[in-house]
Amino acid sequence: MPSYKAPIRDLQFVFHELLNADDTLGTLPGYEEMSPDLVDAILEEGAKLCETLLQPINQSGDLEGCRFTDGQVSTPQGFKEAYQTYAEGGWPSLAADPEFGGQGLPETLSFMMEEMINSSNVSFGLYPGLTRGAISALSQHASDELKSRYLPKMVEGTWAGTMCLTESQAGTDLGLIRTRAEPASEGTYRISGTKIFITGGDQDLTENIVHLVLARITGAPPGVRGISLFLVPKFLSDAQGAPGESNAVSCGSIEHKMGIKASSTCVMNFDQAEGYLVGPENKGLACMFTMMNSERLAIGIQGLGLAEVAYQNAVEYARERLQSRSATGAKAPDQPADPLLVHPDIRRMLLTTRAYNEGARAIAVWTAVNIDIAHRHPDPAAREAADDLVALITPLIKAFFSDYGYETTTLCQQVFGGHGYVREWGMEQFVRDARIAQIYEGTNGVQALDLVRRKLFIHEGRLPERFFDLLDGYIKQQQDNDSMRPFIDPLTQASNLLQGLTGWLKKRGEENPDELGAAATDYLRLFALTALAYFWAQMAGIASTKENDETGYYGTKLATARFFMGRLLPQIHGLAEGIRSGSGLLMDYEESEF
Amino acid sequence: MPSYKAPIRDLQFVFHELLNADDTLGTLPGYEEMSPDLVDAILEEGAKLCETLLQPINQSGDLEGCRFTDGQVSTPQGFKEAYQTYAEGGWPSLAADPEFGGQGLPETLSFMMEEMINSSNVSFGLYPGLTRGAISALSQHASDELKSRYLPKMVEGTWAGTMCLTESQAGTDLGLIRTRAEPASEGTYRISGTKIFITGGDQDLTENIVHLVLARITGAPPGVRGISLFLVPKFLSDAQGAPGESNAVSCGSIEHKMGIKASSTCVMNFDQAEGYLVGPENKGLACMFTMMNSERLAIGIQGLGLAEVAYQNAVEYARERLQSRSATGAKAPDQPADPLLVHPDIRRMLLTTRAYNEGARAIAVWTAVNIDIAHRHPDPAAREAADDLVALITPLIKAFFSDYGYETTTLCQQVFGGHGYVREWGMEQFVRDARIAQIYEGTNGVQALDLVRRKLFIHEGRLPERFFDLLDGYIKQQQDNDSMRPFIDPLTQASNLLQGLTGWLKKRGEENPDELGAAATDYLRLFALTALAYFWAQMAGIASTKENDETGYYGTKLATARFFMGRLLPQIHGLAEGIRSGSGLLMDYEESEF
Repeated sequence: MPSYKAPIRDLQFVFHELLNADDTLGTLPGYEEMSPDLVDAILEEGAKLCETLLQPINQSGDLEGCRFTDGQVSTPQGFKEAYQTYAEGGWPSLAADPEFGGQGLPETLSFMMEEMINSSNVSFGLYPGLTRGAISALSQHASDELKSRYLPKMVEGTWAGTMCLTESQAGTDLGLIRTRAEPASEGTYRISGTKIFITGGDQDLTENIVHLVLARITGAPPGVRGISLFLVPKFLSDAQGAPGESNAVSCGSIEHKMGIKASSTCVMNFDQAEGYLVGPENKGLACMFTMMNSERLAIGIQGLGLAEVAYQNAVEYARERLQSRSATGAKAPDQPADPLLVHPDIRRMLLTTRAYNEGARAIAVWTAVNIDIAHRHPDPAAREAADDLVALITPLIKAFFSDYGYETTTLCQQVFGGHGYVREWGMEQFVRDARIAQIYEGTNGVQALDLVRRKLFIHEGRLPERFFDLLDGYIKQQQDNDSMRPFIDPLTQASNLLQGLTGWLKKRGEENPDELGAAATDYLRLFALTALAYFWAQMAGIASTKENDETGYYGTKLATARFFMGRLLPQIHGLAEGIRSGSGLLMDYEESEF
Repeated sequence: MPSYKAPIRDLQFVFHELLNADDTLGTLPGYEEMSPDLVDAILEEGAKLCETLLQPINQSGDLEGCRFTDGQVSTPQGFKEAYQTYAEGGWPSLAADPEFGGQGLPETLSFMMEEMINSSNVSFGLYPGLTRGAISALSQHASDELKSRYLPKMVEGTWAGTMCLTESQAGTDLGLIRTRAEPASEGTYRISGTKIFITGGDQDLTENIVHLVLARITGAPPGVRGISLFLVPKFLSDAQGAPGESNAVSCGSIEHKMGIKASSTCVMNFDQAEGYLVGPENKGLACMFTMMNSERLAIGIQGLGLAEVAYQNAVEYARERLQSRSATGAKAPDQPADPLLVHPDIRRMLLTTRAYNEGARAIAVWTAVNIDIAHRHPDPAAREAADDLVALITPLIKAFFSDYGYETTTLCQQVFGGHGYVREWGMEQFVRDARIAQIYEGTNGVQALDLVRRKLFIHEGRLPERFFDLLDGYIKQQQDNDSMRPFIDPLTQASNLLQGLTGWLKKRGEENPDELGAAATDYLRLFALTALAYFWAQMAGIASTKENDETGYYGTKLATARFFMGRLLPQIHGLAEGIRSGSGLLMDYEESEF
């Protein structure tokens, strides 16, 4: 059975040392009481919860899966109790608004907790994760009355949230949505239609479920301009605000999936269900995007979380499993064979995982800090700058983190040989669970299109320029630092390549929009690798000043930075050449030729 | 439910046009009666069997899996009947020696059939696949008496074969094997020990099972030099040679795996079981390698087979699923959205799969032709040359085909969005089934080591030189052909890179063997991509002379050749830089730093 130990030291390094987040966040209004000790205490408490409560029911949850009986979903054994402990511990309210019972801590802390939850139990994490997203959408777009009725219960974790977008004919293309909303008495609506792939659409963890549903009000224009957002509770509130009468919402069935089997994925039927408009009529998609952006980041973190736990277990196996001798002579001559860890190709798989993880962790926490700045900074220009960076980086986190999560859980499974393929070792579950993150909340292809067709162009191309300014500034600052050359040289090369390709691509895309689509996936990966190089260079810069620390932490960090630059970053060359090959190679086929 | 149509036209192109195999094989002794019509008839019959018999029980087989009750394995519903039809149709005997009841047809035909079987039902294919490997090991190494007692039944498919190597402490490292063989009466041995991960170790398809078991004869030297090969039947033969008394071999349990669930993976207990020596004492590993090399090629073909069926289903979905509009304007204005196939990123995923598949198919059939030459050519020099190429290419086929098989079944699953992740569409099964091919029969890391540590060096480095001579010869022959420039230029670049790196790597490896291990996986991929480029260039050369053919087949072939050169081959640049980064990045870590 796999084990997990939260990487607290590395989270602390990123938060306190790399990003100096104590200072940045501590000066934001509302966060004055933050302190390094508080951050560390929360990380340690969160780690304990994940290690001792969520991780132990991960494998059993996969084996048992969710059940659907008499129209009700049951989660696997132990989930209900774990959820109760999680909610009672105040975890759902960590970063929520004190007005609704939240603890008002920075999003950044919630983000770091998210990684640990995903390492422990992705299926479990989806239930509160969607609630967090729904809280954020309601906080921004719902009426005060809806907020006061729903948010306190959601913040305390007694009620959950869902996101009801997909219909059988409308996945990526939400313009095709058919669910209807008819105006009814007292400003309410009657919602009718069928939604599919609804995570947590039904479950037995909370006393009520708050569905956020996209639907068309009678007479609305076709396409995405005629979609509105509704709050549709499983149980209507009684006079005291407690769950009363059942609403006309029911779960029709659950999906049998490749992974995340302990997370219910439901077909939800709305049959004249009572619903309440959230945000303006016909602006539902924009309101839902508040939730979707939050979920997209959370999904990316699933990749990081799974890759981290897979790494830990693969390292442990590679240390203990004795198989073959080192090519340079026996390393454990008193044993029948050497541990796997002596073999370079085993190390390649482990270090690939590790280098992505530590780089991704830095990007994730940096993004979270920017979310907090965007929410709270007194200076509008600072808020705008931070918001731009978050908007730019969101598709990179969602797509690249989930891609590398799948690739590296696969590598870690490979370290186990045949044992990786059988159920009992738990490694194949990580791979199956990781796979979904590339698909849901907008496939990774859609993320890449969001990057190249939208994020590169909006606000006169300001978003990528913000990031390139960071790159250029850092490279310039380090250019006379000889000891940093092994990191700054490859970063400079990557940055030049990325910036050059960005200009080239935008120009080509203006002439032929298919050029953007043809380049999108490879361009996103090249961008993400460059962003990783930027953070790895900074981490190396800090580590190089503390290399002789007796724990060895900084020396290892430097070694991993070198590995990233030498072994992983070079992918950019192939990607660049692929991007430059243009759309003709893809589009010069007749449909019949496939 | 997925569907499958065997790619007969493409197999015919490779066999008849690209490789001109009718002439090559037709002049080999024993194959004089081969004709293009015979080849086509066998392909068509084989296709029918796969499409109508094996494919329809693939998804149900995954769902049901194998069962283990009272010490007996049952295969899923329909497998027994399908196996009977398969055996009665003479498919197990296709390429087997007429002396033992075989049809004596070229291995090449068996190889092409293998692709179709793996597209239809990998789990099913493993049962007769291992029998084929066992037949080949027994044919080469067993005594005449063993051959006459076992081969006829195996060739007719009434008895099956297995390969019993792995023990819990001995996976990659077969030197650690503990299973014992004590000499007993009349030249027999008593075999005792436990083997794990035995594919088809027990099943209900055949009346007997012939286990090929690696074990140590009492007093044998330690390590791989003390291992012998034994034939251990499930049932001992009675006086008439029919299965009589049970041997002391039993199945202890079966594994619960990520995929290939309809293939039984058994723990096998040998408890003083009667066994017969195959080949010389203490030379068991060499004898077993006859079977392992055959299996390694077969495993590679699993990657191709699964990628082909995944491609077909993804194309069909992309044609029918309407979602979003083309970026260049509606292509199906009378429909609510355009088919997925209009989107460049969908095409990228499909064409990646297709370009690998068609290139891999060419390599596979070319390798099979070389196997036939190596077996039958009257000129020893021609046999040696062919055998060298097969030995060189075996790890490439096993590792690269299974790697790209996993990557591209994943891409094809991605085309389905959320539907790809749920069981009913069948796409996630292809991914789970594909995953094992990277692991068993020697992990892909072990294949890469076989390439760089063994195949590059044996016979004074003759093996890679044989292949480089082919590359150089073809490039030279085409160098004045301007119309071939788009194919020859990238091929030349790849060939120069590969040949340069090969020399560099061998030199570095002689100084420090860890350099070989550090480079192995990336080097293997770079080699495989260059081999694909060589075959794609040749296919483009043929297609360009027939481009105006009214079926459109050759025009599409040319387009796919261009896609391969422009979009997939560029990976070599990143791989080359990664290889050159050397072993220090991996080995300069203390074990405690992981």
